[in-house]
Amino acid sequence: MLTEEDFIALCFKPLIEGNQSGQRGARNPGAAPLANQRINSFDLQDDAASLTQREGYELILSKDILLEGQHFLKNDPPETLAEKALAVNLSDLAAKGATPTGFMLGIALPTAPEREWATAFSNGLKLISERYACPLIGGDTTGSKSGLMLSVTILGEVPAGKMINRHSANKGDHLFVTGTLGDAALGFQLLNGQIHSDDYDLTSEEYTYLKGKYQRPTPRLAASPILQHYATAAMDLSDGLVKDLPKLCTASGLGAEINIQNFPLSMPAQKYLSRVSDSAAALAEIVSWGDDYELLFAVRPDDHAALRAGAEKSGCHLTEIGRLSEATSEGSGVVKYLDKTGKAIPFKGKPFTHFGGDETVKSS
Amino acid sequence: MLTEEDFIALCFKPLIEGNQSGQRGARNPGAAPLANQRINSFDLQDDAASLTQREGYELILSKDILLEGQHFLKNDPPETLAEKALAVNLSDLAAKGATPTGFMLGIALPTAPEREWATAFSNGLKLISERYACPLIGGDTTGSKSGLMLSVTILGEVPAGKMINRHSANKGDHLFVTGTLGDAALGFQLLNGQIHSDDYDLTSEEYTYLKGKYQRPTPRLAASPILQHYATAAMDLSDGLVKDLPKLCTASGLGAEINIQNFPLSMPAQKYLSRVSDSAAALAEIVSWGDDYELLFAVRPDDHAALRAGAEKSGCHLTEIGRLSEATSEGSGVVKYLDKTGKAIPFKGKPFTHFGGDETVKSS
Repeated sequence: MLTEEDFIALCFKPLIEGNQSGQRGARNPGAAPLANQRINSFDLQDDAASLTQREGYELILSKDILLEGQHFLKNDPPETLAEKALAVNLSDLAAKGATPTGFMLGIALPTAPEREWATAFSNGLKLISERYACPLIGGDTTGSKSGLMLSVTILGEVPAGKMINRHSANKGDHLFVTGTLGDAALGFQLLNGQIHSDDYDLTSEEYTYLKGKYQRPTPRLAASPILQHYATAAMDLSDGLVKDLPKLCTASGLGAEINIQNFPLSMPAQKYLSRVSDSAAALAEIVSWGDDYELLFAVRPDDHAALRAGAEKSGCHLTEIGRLSEATSEGSGVVKYLDKTGKAIPFKGKPFTHFGGDETVKSS
Repeated sequence: MLTEEDFIALCFKPLIEGNQSGQRGARNPGAAPLANQRINSFDLQDDAASLTQREGYELILSKDILLEGQHFLKNDPPETLAEKALAVNLSDLAAKGATPTGFMLGIALPTAPEREWATAFSNGLKLISERYACPLIGGDTTGSKSGLMLSVTILGEVPAGKMINRHSANKGDHLFVTGTLGDAALGFQLLNGQIHSDDYDLTSEEYTYLKGKYQRPTPRLAASPILQHYATAAMDLSDGLVKDLPKLCTASGLGAEINIQNFPLSMPAQKYLSRVSDSAAALAEIVSWGDDYELLFAVRPDDHAALRAGAEKSGCHLTEIGRLSEATSEGSGVVKYLDKTGKAIPFKGKPFTHFGGDETVKSS
């Protein structure tokens, strides 16, 4: 078992080696040459970091808490835990059209950690930190009398005035999502023993894929430049499309019409849905569940062709799922789900509330 | 009981009213006209905030987690909890010679909160936020299956290159502290029933004073400008002088000699010490305990007079407690405690570790 000092050295030192008093991009030659900010100082022996923002850019800040039994499973491996904690915060930056600057990590550990745990956790952080050129720039380590708790503050930047908001979409804008929807829900249910591969003829590759979508979401930073150009509003899907889309609509004072048959679904998800008794209900459930960390964004109809071209060039997988419409007499935030005949149908997964309405583990 | 949405509206809306798209200073006419940064956007409906840093300044970032049963008592009132969460982070800024920009709050709530709790918590946040011109600029709210957890990320600024580090003190520098030492330990022990006012003839005013020092620490931001001018190194005393001073010494590759009889003690603390059987041991214990959130800093001997004049002018209470010396043969970080005759004496409170070595509630 490690002391606090040993844990900090073992877990965080590998992340800041060669990291001080230099330009970020220079330290990560494999990453894009961003180097927009200068991290003046960050030292594990100190309480604070300092940072100089490049002129003409603005700083973007976001924060997400992850709790054991609430946002991740007790048995999730420390590598994927660390990866996910950082990835879900990077996902928030992606939704703003931002580029990562660095992250701060708060960690409350239930018992003195073992060396293996600390090393694995460190490896997961380092992997994502280096992949997305997002260095550790601060944090706090403490003991916890309850479960493991992680709190990440992420910093990024956009050219001044270019941050994408939720409230700036227009009536008639087309709605797009990146990647596929519902895989994380299936990954969670498989890991949690609620469903079993055999019952749906899922191969071990398909099992691994779905599990990976829950444990190791990919922050869609590759789509950031496209969003910066074309998105009138955006957000990341952390709570599930069915809960998140109304937030974007409400913020913009609009409603939406969604074509269910357009939902991008992975092959394993399609296989699963083809083997359940009520596939419409199962689809609603998995896209209501959350943890996909795909981006949802709105684009003006005129920009449709340019968006497609941009996405193709950068290898981003985008799918149009519907359009924004005027708010109904019931107010903004009302979403109509249409089946393949264009008929509005009920489409609702089990609602989730962070304040104890649902006892299953769930993401925020 | 409130839903997550209601809690956010009730608790955080009062903090950002009139707060958007304006200059910080302008919104708080009672506060110093700082207005160094422009908060471009922050919206409770959104996931991220954006900020423009004034040219010639650097951004200072720090982060502290507070856990129920670990950093605060279960029965601490929600107002003081909120005040303390923000104050201890502002204390980190003060130790850097920085001026506050804003804060982000992560909160994990064990059960759906009552309206009264949310309102009281909001009032505490608002009080400190307004007093120190430090607006809310982001956060995350979630449910928790264990106790209440608070995670604050604080942002501040200093003129470029002016952040005070821990590692830059020199041999021979004088060591100073702000305020008084050991009061928070007594406040905690009184609140926790470990000691009783009657046994030490403490009046109700003295009880209230000591309790307040634990529950509502004052971030020493008033000393920031002085530190920026004169401190060669600084830190805030969160874990207690006996644990924190060696950190400053180690970071600077030095040792220290401390004159115990110089410790600044409040009248109630002096009364307590005069009534215990072993006052030397009791003194060691209360200054080892932490939670004082006073500043410890080093100053060149040549700057001594100017520092005194500056402190007097700004009403800061400073006390010289010793000097930095060369590292001993045992290495850096070794502190000699001297009694009034100049003799080195053992001086050690109960050691504290965040990883479960001590079951009493304690601050990080």
